[in-house]
Amino acid sequence: MSFTHSIRVRYAECDQQGVVFHGHWLGYFDDACTRFFASLGFDAKELFTSPDGFDMMIVGAELRWHGPVGFDDTVAIEVACARIGTASFALRYEASVEGRAVCDGLVTYVSVAPGEKRSQPIPDDVRAALASAQVSENA
Amino acid sequence: MSFTHSIRVRYAECDQQGVVFHGHWLGYFDDACTRFFASLGFDAKELFTSPDGFDMMIVGAELRWHGPVGFDDTVAIEVACARIGTASFALRYEASVEGRAVCDGLVTYVSVAPGEKRSQPIPDDVRAALASAQVSENA
Amino acid sequence: MSFTHSIRVRYAECDQQGVVFHGHWLGYFDDACTRFFASLGFDAKELFTSPDGFDMMIVGAELRWHGPVGFDDTVAIEVACARIGTASFALRYEASVEGRAVCDGLVTYVSVAPGEKRSQPIPDDVRAALASAQVSENA
Amino acid sequence: MSFTHSIRVRYAECDQQGVVFHGHWLGYFDDACTRFFASLGFDAKELFTSPDGFDMMIVGAELRWHGPVGFDDTVAIEVACARIGTASFALRYEASVEGRAVCDGLVTYVSVAPGEKRSQPIPDDVRAALASAQVSENA
Repeated sequence: MSFTHSIRVRYAECDQQGVVFHGHWLGYFDDACTRFFASLGFDAKELFTSPDGFDMMIVGAELRWHGPVGFDDTVAIEVACARIGTASFALRYEASVEGRAVCDGLVTYVSVAPGEKRSQPIPDDVRAALASAQVSENA
Repeated sequence: MSFTHSIRVRYAECDQQGVVFHGHWLGYFDDACTRFFASLGFDAKELFTSPDGFDMMIVGAELRWHGPVGFDDTVAIEVACARIGTASFALRYEASVEGRAVCDGLVTYVSVAPGEKRSQPIPDDVRAALASAQVSENA
Repeated sequence: MSFTHSIRVRYAECDQQGVVFHGHWLGYFDDACTRFFASLGFDAKELFTSPDGFDMMIVGAELRWHGPVGFDDTVAIEVACARIGTASFALRYEASVEGRAVCDGLVTYVSVAPGEKRSQPIPDDVRAALASAQVSENA
Repeated sequence: MSFTHSIRVRYAECDQQGVVFHGHWLGYFDDACTRFFASLGFDAKELFTSPDGFDMMIVGAELRWHGPVGFDDTVAIEVACARIGTASFALRYEASVEGRAVCDGLVTYVSVAPGEKRSQPIPDDVRAALASAQVSENA
């Protein structure tokens, strides 16, 4: 199963080189993450903030850039689950502009209770949803 | 009494025109506000987050830009209190680069209890501190 | 004529108070401005960057906030032209969430040649387009 | 040789979890990079924008987070050169708050001519400066 989120690049996100400042990509991927969970049936507001909900902390990220993205470009960000552990999981993000790969990322998350900072096992319903969006890590 | 906070412009804050994107100025002024209160003896973390503390919401802002500011420029932001009411006050910000005026703003704040959204009278110690930093509105 | 641009609030745009940080609104309005010009037939990339195009500098802004906006809220931003002068014009932005007014702004722009910083008369085609989107300032 | 840049966390950089949003760290490291080059004798404005200067594109980044950082915290970012190739190099960033490790990153840069997007050998003076700040990759 595949999920794709689209973002249109804002003027403020481009730097003097005329391209998206590299530091914005983690924010783009985070926005795509929110929509990805929504596509799996989890309302972002409830998921991340209700007391019996599920929240996550980012513990690692790897990013690679392949080409420039400019102002007003539409970026398609494909999201998939790359790995599911007991209390952590990783999402893979692949961004492209008109079919041209521009940036990809692998972000590792740890499951935590809302408002807390210690890890907890991924809730069963979240785990099942992530599994439905899992791809081979070698894909 | 006068307080000045300095900011060095980050690369990411400049847009394709080679100048600080105008949307960043409210953030610069907010950062100057934090340091302004610290200069008056209020620790930012305690002031804005402790249960018996003081927090504020922004309800209005007026900004004027006078000239460009570029990457790596050092911006001096002078902060003063322009008005003190019962539950609201206004701070004036005047930003310059090497003596050249570049942007000024007048931001109006409402006093609220931390974690709440309804207004409350400005606490006495905050009021006294603001009064010590007050300038004539016609200055 | 009325134009409305929609934005969904990103997680990164909300602060510790659980609401959109006030400094992001000028960026939201700038994004709405880009889409507003696109709705009038001006491609953003060409309009703002081609040598015979049209660019603009922001010289003033007034903002008022009316209520909180949270993570994942959808914000409708209505854009209209409030004033047209020889080399400057003003756009009015009115943002709402599910019909509830949350923020409005009046931003004044000066027409400049791309890559330059001195003002030039608003090009005729831009002027005609702005006039078609003009509302009474007292509206 | 070691270089450390300090950043004080702005209110706008903290999210609803009360910690620095993870997407800001690449921006912090970029700011540290500017100051790192300045410490080596390269003026940021001249280095990155003059026609006979040197510019760089980011092609990869790896980040790991070790603990939370909050509003008004002072972050010390230590910068060192981890690798120097013909047209690319990598910088290592290690961020801490009061001696506690909070985030580290390895960012890979490709040398390009200002205003262009194709790689060029790292200029000799830049190479010599980077070598003076090089640490063992196993350090």
